[in-house]
Amino acid sequence: MTSQFSKKSEAWSARFSEPVSDLVKRYTASVFFDNRMAAFDIQGSLAHAEMLAAQNIINAQDYADIQRGMAQIKSEIDSGKFEWLLDLEDVHLNIEKRLTELVGDAGKRLHTGRSRNDQVATDIRLYVRSSIDTIVGLLGDLRLALLNLAEQHAETILPGFTHMQVAQPITFGHHMLAYVEMFSRDAERMQDCRKRVNRLPLGAAALAGTTFPIDRERVAKTLGFEDVCHNSLDAVSDRDFAIEFCAAAALIMTHVSRMSEELVIWMSPRVGFIDIADRFCTGSSIMPQKKNPDVPELARGKTGRVNGHLIALLTLMKGQPLAYNKDNQEDKEPLFDTVDTVVDTLRIFADMATGITVKADAMRAAALQGYATATDLADYLVKKGLPFRDAHEAVALAVRTCVDKGCDLSDMSLAELQQFSKLIGEDVFVVLTLEGSVAARDHIGGTAPNQVKAAIARARSKLD
Amino acid sequence: MTSQFSKKSEAWSARFSEPVSDLVKRYTASVFFDNRMAAFDIQGSLAHAEMLAAQNIINAQDYADIQRGMAQIKSEIDSGKFEWLLDLEDVHLNIEKRLTELVGDAGKRLHTGRSRNDQVATDIRLYVRSSIDTIVGLLGDLRLALLNLAEQHAETILPGFTHMQVAQPITFGHHMLAYVEMFSRDAERMQDCRKRVNRLPLGAAALAGTTFPIDRERVAKTLGFEDVCHNSLDAVSDRDFAIEFCAAAALIMTHVSRMSEELVIWMSPRVGFIDIADRFCTGSSIMPQKKNPDVPELARGKTGRVNGHLIALLTLMKGQPLAYNKDNQEDKEPLFDTVDTVVDTLRIFADMATGITVKADAMRAAALQGYATATDLADYLVKKGLPFRDAHEAVALAVRTCVDKGCDLSDMSLAELQQFSKLIGEDVFVVLTLEGSVAARDHIGGTAPNQVKAAIARARSKLD
Amino acid sequence: MTSQFSKKSEAWSARFSEPVSDLVKRYTASVFFDNRMAAFDIQGSLAHAEMLAAQNIINAQDYADIQRGMAQIKSEIDSGKFEWLLDLEDVHLNIEKRLTELVGDAGKRLHTGRSRNDQVATDIRLYVRSSIDTIVGLLGDLRLALLNLAEQHAETILPGFTHMQVAQPITFGHHMLAYVEMFSRDAERMQDCRKRVNRLPLGAAALAGTTFPIDRERVAKTLGFEDVCHNSLDAVSDRDFAIEFCAAAALIMTHVSRMSEELVIWMSPRVGFIDIADRFCTGSSIMPQKKNPDVPELARGKTGRVNGHLIALLTLMKGQPLAYNKDNQEDKEPLFDTVDTVVDTLRIFADMATGITVKADAMRAAALQGYATATDLADYLVKKGLPFRDAHEAVALAVRTCVDKGCDLSDMSLAELQQFSKLIGEDVFVVLTLEGSVAARDHIGGTAPNQVKAAIARARSKLD
Amino acid sequence: MTSQFSKKSEAWSARFSEPVSDLVKRYTASVFFDNRMAAFDIQGSLAHAEMLAAQNIINAQDYADIQRGMAQIKSEIDSGKFEWLLDLEDVHLNIEKRLTELVGDAGKRLHTGRSRNDQVATDIRLYVRSSIDTIVGLLGDLRLALLNLAEQHAETILPGFTHMQVAQPITFGHHMLAYVEMFSRDAERMQDCRKRVNRLPLGAAALAGTTFPIDRERVAKTLGFEDVCHNSLDAVSDRDFAIEFCAAAALIMTHVSRMSEELVIWMSPRVGFIDIADRFCTGSSIMPQKKNPDVPELARGKTGRVNGHLIALLTLMKGQPLAYNKDNQEDKEPLFDTVDTVVDTLRIFADMATGITVKADAMRAAALQGYATATDLADYLVKKGLPFRDAHEAVALAVRTCVDKGCDLSDMSLAELQQFSKLIGEDVFVVLTLEGSVAARDHIGGTAPNQVKAAIARARSKLD
Repeated sequence: MTSQFSKKSEAWSARFSEPVSDLVKRYTASVFFDNRMAAFDIQGSLAHAEMLAAQNIINAQDYADIQRGMAQIKSEIDSGKFEWLLDLEDVHLNIEKRLTELVGDAGKRLHTGRSRNDQVATDIRLYVRSSIDTIVGLLGDLRLALLNLAEQHAETILPGFTHMQVAQPITFGHHMLAYVEMFSRDAERMQDCRKRVNRLPLGAAALAGTTFPIDRERVAKTLGFEDVCHNSLDAVSDRDFAIEFCAAAALIMTHVSRMSEELVIWMSPRVGFIDIADRFCTGSSIMPQKKNPDVPELARGKTGRVNGHLIALLTLMKGQPLAYNKDNQEDKEPLFDTVDTVVDTLRIFADMATGITVKADAMRAAALQGYATATDLADYLVKKGLPFRDAHEAVALAVRTCVDKGCDLSDMSLAELQQFSKLIGEDVFVVLTLEGSVAARDHIGGTAPNQVKAAIARARSKLD
Repeated sequence: MTSQFSKKSEAWSARFSEPVSDLVKRYTASVFFDNRMAAFDIQGSLAHAEMLAAQNIINAQDYADIQRGMAQIKSEIDSGKFEWLLDLEDVHLNIEKRLTELVGDAGKRLHTGRSRNDQVATDIRLYVRSSIDTIVGLLGDLRLALLNLAEQHAETILPGFTHMQVAQPITFGHHMLAYVEMFSRDAERMQDCRKRVNRLPLGAAALAGTTFPIDRERVAKTLGFEDVCHNSLDAVSDRDFAIEFCAAAALIMTHVSRMSEELVIWMSPRVGFIDIADRFCTGSSIMPQKKNPDVPELARGKTGRVNGHLIALLTLMKGQPLAYNKDNQEDKEPLFDTVDTVVDTLRIFADMATGITVKADAMRAAALQGYATATDLADYLVKKGLPFRDAHEAVALAVRTCVDKGCDLSDMSLAELQQFSKLIGEDVFVVLTLEGSVAARDHIGGTAPNQVKAAIARARSKLD
Repeated sequence: MTSQFSKKSEAWSARFSEPVSDLVKRYTASVFFDNRMAAFDIQGSLAHAEMLAAQNIINAQDYADIQRGMAQIKSEIDSGKFEWLLDLEDVHLNIEKRLTELVGDAGKRLHTGRSRNDQVATDIRLYVRSSIDTIVGLLGDLRLALLNLAEQHAETILPGFTHMQVAQPITFGHHMLAYVEMFSRDAERMQDCRKRVNRLPLGAAALAGTTFPIDRERVAKTLGFEDVCHNSLDAVSDRDFAIEFCAAAALIMTHVSRMSEELVIWMSPRVGFIDIADRFCTGSSIMPQKKNPDVPELARGKTGRVNGHLIALLTLMKGQPLAYNKDNQEDKEPLFDTVDTVVDTLRIFADMATGITVKADAMRAAALQGYATATDLADYLVKKGLPFRDAHEAVALAVRTCVDKGCDLSDMSLAELQQFSKLIGEDVFVVLTLEGSVAARDHIGGTAPNQVKAAIARARSKLD
Repeated sequence: MTSQFSKKSEAWSARFSEPVSDLVKRYTASVFFDNRMAAFDIQGSLAHAEMLAAQNIINAQDYADIQRGMAQIKSEIDSGKFEWLLDLEDVHLNIEKRLTELVGDAGKRLHTGRSRNDQVATDIRLYVRSSIDTIVGLLGDLRLALLNLAEQHAETILPGFTHMQVAQPITFGHHMLAYVEMFSRDAERMQDCRKRVNRLPLGAAALAGTTFPIDRERVAKTLGFEDVCHNSLDAVSDRDFAIEFCAAAALIMTHVSRMSEELVIWMSPRVGFIDIADRFCTGSSIMPQKKNPDVPELARGKTGRVNGHLIALLTLMKGQPLAYNKDNQEDKEPLFDTVDTVVDTLRIFADMATGITVKADAMRAAALQGYATATDLADYLVKKGLPFRDAHEAVALAVRTCVDKGCDLSDMSLAELQQFSKLIGEDVFVVLTLEGSVAARDHIGGTAPNQVKAAIARARSKLD
């Protein structure tokens, strides 16, 4: 065989007078990280070969040989017997070289009408599409776990915080539903991104298309792509889909970081709202009493990683002239690590949600601390005819008196309360209870238990 | 009036024993940047008041008073007469205070059943929705300008580059269409983002909903929102939509940076592919001969700005516990500056595209330098029966001979060419022409002029 | 006057055939943000003119005219009378044009031997140098405020947390000193950065130096620069110093964000370790009882802003060919906003540190909850001869027993404790006290009160 | 043995009732990336043990056993025989467990007076310190290679560009020196960072120090640290040094990206200023003629990676409460990859600099295109008495005339030139030569060949 493969240890091709140095070879090779795309590379090559045969660009025997060779390569890879060679740079040349060893000239004909540029672009898109499907599934699992938790605690009262100060009573179920909403939007974003991922670059060849009579729609159909990329220069140089994917992933991790922050704070002994099962925690090498919420902490930290990968890709593409440049090889590691991070994190969170123990007593105690029903008192006055701004001011005065006295609003007598407004009557005390407060927020999106239950039902139906 | 407004110079409300310091006031106030949302604040307040009246939470007279007051405020703002006060923190309190001055108790009733948390979230969404519509329009203008340029140059030959090395001949029209594709995807992304922006937070109140019998769907309909936010905690603390918007904006600027890089290189005298009209260029304070492509350079630089704002928002949200925290006030300036940057840049680029002079001779000369048709020769050999990999190697040898001789492939005689393959015949010379090469890439997405024209037609129809 | 200034409304210079469009003018102008460098621009110009005169490049009368003109311009700017014109692009041309109006030909001679490229680089360095000095001063103020707080609470016991779980008792003074260390390193970094800022670009002219017999060392000395930039291309295109400054600023804000996080958590009612004076807090538009720690929350949010600016500048410089490109104009706004953010935040934090009320009882109560002295028990066993790993295991068992019983280690009887190790004797109970635990960590960097006091003394002496 | 090690498959320690799940184990373990710190972990442990023995906290036999065990472990690791176990989480527990297998109780005593928190902080600092030393060395190698290139081309004329437009003639040696300056500042920054890295956290234990009578200065001296960390909370939670390191690394890569951009453009056939040796280039899978500058392209792309890691670390630390949180484990991979990227890139660039062929003819031809000496003409007029601004305008007019005529300034006759100023005499033509222009910029930092040679000498002496 006199092809360029055997010459790699000498020079890139006959056009070159010296081989790349070992340092350069290591620096520029991608095979040790891009071989995770092997299955997609084979899938893409088979679809390409099928079209070449259908268009009579290669003959039926060549196609059969390619199918046979690829089947064997797939089995070699699956069983771990395939030998990945640094000298062959990347997953694509490694597989093509092995194919040529196995089936001879048919292997050398596979690359007809394509280039590595459109080949790699196709492989990555297949990989990202598959990753999106996995992630959307996991986002569903996590939402389901959170919905189950929400359902158990649709009436469990928790202080709602703003600025980490007690604001108004809510239910724990309602709080969990906030995360269900976030992860639901994340799934939407991934689905929207998938539309743009799911377009076929193959046929763009190096950058300008090919002189062979190819049928791109046929390949698209075989591979399940919704459309072909409509411009060959764009097809080989576009990495938008990877950036959009990483941006959506960064939002997932941002949501995970928020939930993690709350879990960590809630498990802190002074707060004590929840416990997390031992299997998600670790201890200390020095402090024998410690039980640390490692999983949410680590997940919170991993947010940085994904934000970083997003910036890596944006920096990579900034100011790149058309069409393909070698810079683009740097798209893969940030992308792969983003997928791994998000997949592992979602999987472990869906599992961990089932290991959360809610301490309803501590939550209730906290809700009683901090004048959580002050707004209810203001609303009460408004319903009696006071303009809202005046009601707000009257209650603020009442709260200040309570702060000074060290008591709660509901600890005051009717007479004391009436100092702040003559409109206050005996019926005020129902308004000042936690249950009364929560039940009164009875509209779509509100924290009233029946609204929470309705929201759970809606969210469940979206998951079916 | 004894409301909290008049007390701001003393203390926040009756609950506080001392006023905020001047330094704190300046540090925490947002009025000098958030007043750009004034029109949306009024629009949101009017829709809220309309619903309060429809639900009999306020009476018809109050609603009429609020309408009258808001009309006057709008006119004061439009005419620049409205006095924005630092003491009143933000756009919302400034407007509400003025309303109360103008219409008394009705003004104090406006805030019934809402909070600044859901009010500000509504205002920002209205602002982002409107910005998206502007940007989508400008992306259309820019694509139209590029399509016009592409149409004029559907047959103008340019060397296609990969790695900044001559790869294969393409047409300038085809090159412009690559950017049309990018900006088309950008518009898609903005539209997808718009769906998630276009949901109503109002009714979430502070974080838990309100005790008043509000009708959120009515407000959503009035304001043109497609849905209401389904969880009140999420509604007031979600800034996903701003992050997703900035990520889409970062991709727009990434595309702008790539086009800018090419314009700057193309206008460099050694390349000389284009000229940009004087009105988009400036000179030098010291070098009298200079004419600098300031606009594309500056646009390329502004990419950093938008990437930075994206990171600012992601950092902002990382690890934030629910629900609203003051950190969120920091969402506005990055968002506003992102909108301004993208809007100004797209507007100027659509204009500048009409000021580009194509130097077809220089492009053609460059295409003749660098063996641009070598792939065509390889394809020719494949069509004669040689496996692609062997054809590639034969042509590589031919190129190396040419490099040594300092000639082009088409400069060699048939006999010389046949040294590299006996399959080469007299018909090879057509294949080695630039026009032959370009015309041969005749499939969807390819650079053949008739494909370019078809692509222009498709792109135009998408813009209608 | 026929100079380029008067032509700006027509064309950039005689070399141009049409003026820049209004949109371009607005897009490319910097005068409305770079005029904050006016004083530095004048300072730099005067030093340049002084050298030109000393070298006989301009005559004494010209120099005197320039001095006179600049004095008047400075006074016009200081009094707000100076009219900044968009048509004149930037602070430099605005000042130079006014100078020429005031003093005629001498003004036109000022630009001899320099270019805007080295002029602007000099101005920014003067600006950053001055900003560093301000920031280093403010970092000192903040450390002093924290040292005062630490001194008051050198013995006040607080639970030390790792993973937000109670780890070991520490003192509040010791905790404050951790921040003193951070802000001390921040000041070091700023000082190191200052060395690289403090080098003179002037003399680099456009990019290659000038043909006039200039004396760069003289200008450097006049302006207080430690050295001149040794390569003219680098001098005009280097923005390292701005990036290094922003990276140091990002670390300051990171430290501020950590402190803010703790202040917010500590002020949350369930934790209740501190209160922050009313003048640093605000209330709620809807919830009358709220008192929110706005300042630390906002500061935490502003971390994103500075991280974003750092990325903006890194993105800006990525892949920029030498020497000056218009992209670089985008260095200013991120830099200016970074300075403003850091300066305002440090000033307000130094002030706020004096408004923190420590609630020692709550801290002590928290330290008693969570087996904070378990490590002390393990260390006790080690001192009795048990290998550390075995001691750790014995105490872990004891803690688990306590968790099951709902008691503290010190609540167990000697007999109960001896179940876990026969080595435990009556002297164990001293070891299990908070004071005993804290006092025992008596080495440099440890939390023992006398070590805390020594550390305060060392830190104070560094500030003198 | 009943220690926690053997229990890991069951539960973290006796305090836990269930073991961590396999998914959690994989998610939280770091051993497969942190084992690159093994040598530093052993070095740190030996210094700790030496101090424990010197302070009589452990006895001489224990210390001897630890030394013996560690020697064997080191040899097992070096020979690849050491078995890293996921069950043991990280490099630290893996080594300690093996030590205890080898030497029994002495192994269990090693952890006396320390915690994993201060242990890992020490290991990372040793790692970063060593990495800084490697990088500073490589920055020296690269500067040396560039200085050699600069020396060969101290007089080779190249057009200096601003805005990618021809500005003024410079020499290629002068251009290379700009990069020498940048990489010299990078080395300074690394050295400054090293001071802050080189402080000992050990002794901080978990967060509060230890009850054993340790001698931290002794350990610092053994390990070559310049100081001890002065606050235990800060010591275990500070990751500033890693962020500062990554920021300095990002600037190195920014400089590499700028040089790469220039190399890629210079090797593009239309520019043709240089060639890069084949061993740093690769070809195309489809286009037989291609020779692509892969190394600089890939290096330019890798800038994104390091910017991303910087953001990952900043995001990681944002808002983290004291002291150690598990988030911090995420500091390692970004740091390690930053080191690898910078080390590999600098090594390959120092090598590649020797493989650059300068095409002086093409550079000269380019310098003659673009009125590079227009500034010289303006300066000439100033020296004849015209104010600079008027000279600038006169030359601008001359250039415009040349542009219209398609000639250079030096192509005009004296009479033609005198149309623009009567001050022009016969001596003008020397001024308009490239050599005359370059030689005239004869001051420190200027491009005159003798200044370039002097700068090379200065830079060489800094490297000795």
